[in-house]
Amino acid sequence: MILRTLTIVGVGLIGGSIALAARARGVAGRIVGVGPRSLQLENALQHGMIDACYPELGPAVGDADAVVVCTPVDHIADQVVEIAGCARSDTLITDVGSTKAFIVNSLIGRLPGGARFVGGHPLAGSEKSGLQFADARLFEGRLVVLTPSDHFHPDAVAAVTEFWKGLGARVKEMTPEDHDRAVAITSHLPHLVAAALAGMLPADLRELVASGFRDTTRVAGGDPCLWTAIFQQNEAALRQTLDKFQLALGRCFNDGDRLDMSHLQKLLAEGKRNRDALGS
Amino acid sequence: MILRTLTIVGVGLIGGSIALAARARGVAGRIVGVGPRSLQLENALQHGMIDACYPELGPAVGDADAVVVCTPVDHIADQVVEIAGCARSDTLITDVGSTKAFIVNSLIGRLPGGARFVGGHPLAGSEKSGLQFADARLFEGRLVVLTPSDHFHPDAVAAVTEFWKGLGARVKEMTPEDHDRAVAITSHLPHLVAAALAGMLPADLRELVASGFRDTTRVAGGDPCLWTAIFQQNEAALRQTLDKFQLALGRCFNDGDRLDMSHLQKLLAEGKRNRDALGS
Repeated sequence: MILRTLTIVGVGLIGGSIALAARARGVAGRIVGVGPRSLQLENALQHGMIDACYPELGPAVGDADAVVVCTPVDHIADQVVEIAGCARSDTLITDVGSTKAFIVNSLIGRLPGGARFVGGHPLAGSEKSGLQFADARLFEGRLVVLTPSDHFHPDAVAAVTEFWKGLGARVKEMTPEDHDRAVAITSHLPHLVAAALAGMLPADLRELVASGFRDTTRVAGGDPCLWTAIFQQNEAALRQTLDKFQLALGRCFNDGDRLDMSHLQKLLAEGKRNRDALGS
Repeated sequence: MILRTLTIVGVGLIGGSIALAARARGVAGRIVGVGPRSLQLENALQHGMIDACYPELGPAVGDADAVVVCTPVDHIADQVVEIAGCARSDTLITDVGSTKAFIVNSLIGRLPGGARFVGGHPLAGSEKSGLQFADARLFEGRLVVLTPSDHFHPDAVAAVTEFWKGLGARVKEMTPEDHDRAVAITSHLPHLVAAALAGMLPADLRELVASGFRDTTRVAGGDPCLWTAIFQQNEAALRQTLDKFQLALGRCFNDGDRLDMSHLQKLLAEGKRNRDALGS
């Protein structure tokens, strides 16, 4: 047992999966949820997935040994500040936001001295959202990035690392800025591109779609509000990687509207080499 | 039994799957392959997947009731002409090329009068290639586009339709030009985009890749030579759809390097609506 009481703020796909994994692996004794009471949350209470649920942070975090914030990225920083204000001074606080620099940097000076906070991002998820898709094995073998900062209590990193390893994940430390530049390439640009591709499909061509189009656009099924907030918090890195992407595509055709065969062959060969290196 | 002898030119993923499906569903009595003798082809012969195999077209098509050409798109037209020159005049000829206008139009005037030819494209496949990935069920419930032309014998369309239905597929007729404009959106642009995304991934970020990037770039594992030839034969439609795509992406940022929130929200919402309409 790592934690007596674990509080999860935002019990959706990720928060719910943390609850299930923590229960299954004995990482936490008592699991408390924070969020609006929904039918799904009532169900989770009835099935013992969580032990209690509160609509407000205050009563939910007073006893917590650790609080994991799993809300949309534009809510996280304010909630961390609020949690730090009503939790014990030794309560561990972390988050699962898909962006890190905006969140972590905006907490500097807003958290009490010695706050045990470290930013985090589990590289696991789905285009689906909601507690009904929660999965106790979502984090097994997956990587969680932690983004330590000198401004917070240094022992939070080791404790949150132990927590995630307890859920079956691997942990890697990066600076918030390096994390954001990386996910601009690995996640944010692919999402934008998938949405643009899906958006171009006229209804009368739907019957012509095969597995390639389905795969390439799958992530476009994600929640537009969540993604708008993510893009906003990673605007500069997204812009940079989008520019590079558009340049590479633009060079496929020369000025005379003909394919530039040498560029095209290089682009396809590099794409295949990199994709093959990832495995299936 | 629809065909006494079926000849498949190019026994790879698609050709091999046709052989397996035709055997499993009793669509053909004798199945003859055309292609270089490889270990996999020897294996296919030994296991009775095909009954005979020839390196050359001549001896393989003399007896054929139907010939399906499953070679790369830049080989198809010339092979169809050669087949028509050495097969019976009533032999049905079709192909499975991913482009249609270039192939079909380049056959006008090169095939004998009354040739029983119709172009075809089964919308099924994989980023994998090779006989070892052949699957008897590859075409079950999938759509095959046929592109009839007034220049060839009209009864070929009905016969090839019956053939594909025998393999479990559905059939739709389109003009070669409509087909090519459609697959530029549903297949060719997604492939180009997936390759460009995969090509941008530095080796040191591979460990940060999760299922989203894998899905979005899966098709980039396809054979660059096959795809270069496909893009060349659909240059104009690809250019047009790429321009539209680049424009939609470019508008995500305004001149001041800030996200254009109203465009972004619209793009994400439309992408989700269209992707959700496809189902998983």
